[in-house]
Amino acid sequence: MSVPSTLNIGLCGFGTVGQGVWQHLTSHRAELEARLGVKLNLARASVRDLKKKRDVKVPARVLTTDPLAIARDPAIHIVCELMGGTTLAREVTLAALWRGAVVVSANKALICEHGPEIIAAAQKHGGHFFFEASVAGGIPIIKALREGLVANRFTRIYGILNGTCNYILTQMEEHDAPYAAVLAEAKRLGYAEADESLDVDGWDTAHKASVLAWLAHGVWVKTDQMIVEGISRITPADFKTAATLGFGIKLLAVITRDFAKNELSVRVHPTLLPAGNVVANVSGVFNAISVTGDVVGTTFYSGRGAGRDATASAVISDIADAASLLQHGKGAHLLGEITAAPRACRLAPPQHVLSRFYLRLTVRDQPGVLARVASVMAKHKVSIASVIQGPADEPGAASLVLTTHESDERAMGATLKRLKALAAVLDEPVLLRIGDFER
Amino acid sequence: MSVPSTLNIGLCGFGTVGQGVWQHLTSHRAELEARLGVKLNLARASVRDLKKKRDVKVPARVLTTDPLAIARDPAIHIVCELMGGTTLAREVTLAALWRGAVVVSANKALICEHGPEIIAAAQKHGGHFFFEASVAGGIPIIKALREGLVANRFTRIYGILNGTCNYILTQMEEHDAPYAAVLAEAKRLGYAEADESLDVDGWDTAHKASVLAWLAHGVWVKTDQMIVEGISRITPADFKTAATLGFGIKLLAVITRDFAKNELSVRVHPTLLPAGNVVANVSGVFNAISVTGDVVGTTFYSGRGAGRDATASAVISDIADAASLLQHGKGAHLLGEITAAPRACRLAPPQHVLSRFYLRLTVRDQPGVLARVASVMAKHKVSIASVIQGPADEPGAASLVLTTHESDERAMGATLKRLKALAAVLDEPVLLRIGDFER
Repeated sequence: MSVPSTLNIGLCGFGTVGQGVWQHLTSHRAELEARLGVKLNLARASVRDLKKKRDVKVPARVLTTDPLAIARDPAIHIVCELMGGTTLAREVTLAALWRGAVVVSANKALICEHGPEIIAAAQKHGGHFFFEASVAGGIPIIKALREGLVANRFTRIYGILNGTCNYILTQMEEHDAPYAAVLAEAKRLGYAEADESLDVDGWDTAHKASVLAWLAHGVWVKTDQMIVEGISRITPADFKTAATLGFGIKLLAVITRDFAKNELSVRVHPTLLPAGNVVANVSGVFNAISVTGDVVGTTFYSGRGAGRDATASAVISDIADAASLLQHGKGAHLLGEITAAPRACRLAPPQHVLSRFYLRLTVRDQPGVLARVASVMAKHKVSIASVIQGPADEPGAASLVLTTHESDERAMGATLKRLKALAAVLDEPVLLRIGDFER
Repeated sequence: MSVPSTLNIGLCGFGTVGQGVWQHLTSHRAELEARLGVKLNLARASVRDLKKKRDVKVPARVLTTDPLAIARDPAIHIVCELMGGTTLAREVTLAALWRGAVVVSANKALICEHGPEIIAAAQKHGGHFFFEASVAGGIPIIKALREGLVANRFTRIYGILNGTCNYILTQMEEHDAPYAAVLAEAKRLGYAEADESLDVDGWDTAHKASVLAWLAHGVWVKTDQMIVEGISRITPADFKTAATLGFGIKLLAVITRDFAKNELSVRVHPTLLPAGNVVANVSGVFNAISVTGDVVGTTFYSGRGAGRDATASAVISDIADAASLLQHGKGAHLLGEITAAPRACRLAPPQHVLSRFYLRLTVRDQPGVLARVASVMAKHKVSIASVIQGPADEPGAASLVLTTHESDERAMGATLKRLKALAAVLDEPVLLRIGDFER
């Protein structure tokens, strides 16, 4: 491979993130070129509408409406896929990898859905795939897991990976505000999409959990192999009850590995975290990740998870790594070697996934209900740790919040099914996990 | 350069950290070799006493009492300098670099004192120098600054870099215990050295600040060019007063860069941090670092800063980077390029280093003292924000805690000098900075 003195960069997608990459690369060009020893040329960018006014001005000649033309252009050394979606983005990514180019991606949904195909294409054709921006943009967590903590087996990784959900939960907690009102406000402020389900139902977090689980364990876990639960049924009352019990509530991705059983668990759910837990204290749009390795112990990271600038910072760090790779041959700890991890593991069955639970039931306000609920739980060997009764919104109803001692997902799932069948249980129960992630 | 199929590793120093590296490299060898595509051979280790019993058993043939023999051995590809000190460690480091080997170092004092010589030797002779373990062992902060956040200019980096001090301060705060008693207990538990001054007087933190400042700004700052103040004069009463004002107290390294003035400030001092600040909530032997970049915003990192396993994790990550480098040529973002940073800057003069201050005076308990103190401060244009008077330990004395509005180091230094000259001021004043590091 000849070493180019100028690296041509193509941006497929020139929306918020693409323009951020352009602007920051331009303003930091001198330092970056000095550091990397190569010229960086923003050669092409693809847009949907050539005539649209943009905040970042670029020469008209670099713009195209065809991202595939950039992906296939042999003059482009580094293709940044910043479009999102999983159809055209997949074509663009594969087309670039097929010709042995470097692809820099911020697309967690694409990696989660088509990761094995992408990595195989990179390996077969000598292309390379970088994706620091795909998880927790402002936090260099991909590099930390892949390189900085390479000495470790990861027993537990958990964290807040979706800033929209964390913003909503923080607002609900701080302002005692109902979910729907906070969501509407978040949409107005541009913190939530018009269709919020990708974020609030946990799917975006699940995509990112899939990427982290693969990096840490070399195993592709699809979202339909995970527990994925969202935040839409949490109420201000849940925050108050949780606080009474000494907890905050966060939507977490949780990736645990039992090296003795050789089992991996990947799940996404709202979680009660002890008020003193450092992740519990990360508010607003910030992301936070706790990583426990068998050598290093527990380490913690936080920063902005998304948005123009944090994502651009991650994309540019990948461009820098790509520049180093293209100049000097293979870089550190590439992807093929992750998939060669010698300890392939299986997914943990539900009966091996343990936690304490928080269960809120809306029940008929009449004697004997607690006895019936307790009897169902006892039958499934789910042991009650505390009970808090309070008023419910509906007339003639009461709220019953139970916490359990440690139980497993299978027992709790069966319990839930039976509880729902009770005539005295009026509404869909709300089940949250309690995160006992002490250092 | 021919690519070896086995990399020979030599450990200069086989104490706590050296044995940790040996043990974890041995137990994780299969994964690491699969990931890196090369065999890792623990070839030699130097000790002071060949006969000493060690926790980690190694074949007698690998041991030597001569670390320089390892450094000079042409069969050793990667020399890990884990001895500490700055004399023999310097010789070992230079000897290895002179023959073009890779040196992995945990030695912040050495880097701070002899960094320019070491980097020059590496550049001249084709050697390489890795030092992830030198600052905040368990946190991959060197890699984050050098690679993950390469898109950024760093406006502010601050954090807790010495676990011994943080342990002592945490114990003082949580148990309302005097410094001397906590220090004695820390020595008994092995958390503090017999000679504690390197830690508690801030020098170890200053060495690490020097390393971070160089990485982030390409400038070598010696400890005698910094404000370096330790923790030994802080009392349990200071914690109480600080808490009343809404603060905790941490020993921080603070590195700020004013890009408009092109000035750099590097300092180490006990700092009042708002109780909600995430760094303020990092307790015990843990380290924590907040990094603010112009693109990414503020990111935060914490983990164990020292000790056998956290340091071994960092050393092994450097060995992995070195393995990649030795197999594939130059790795990402190497040192020469940092020193080529085009924006060399000067150190900020004291009058440009601003903060609010916390000043505790032990004064004669008589009328008019506050007026005299306030008059001195007014003369130097240091504006008082709050005054808290309380009892002092000495009979006939009172404690006077003043906080100021933002002032600068020159004005505050001059104020302090005049205050000490007042007859009513009985004891050496205690001056702490207030860290207004809001996100």
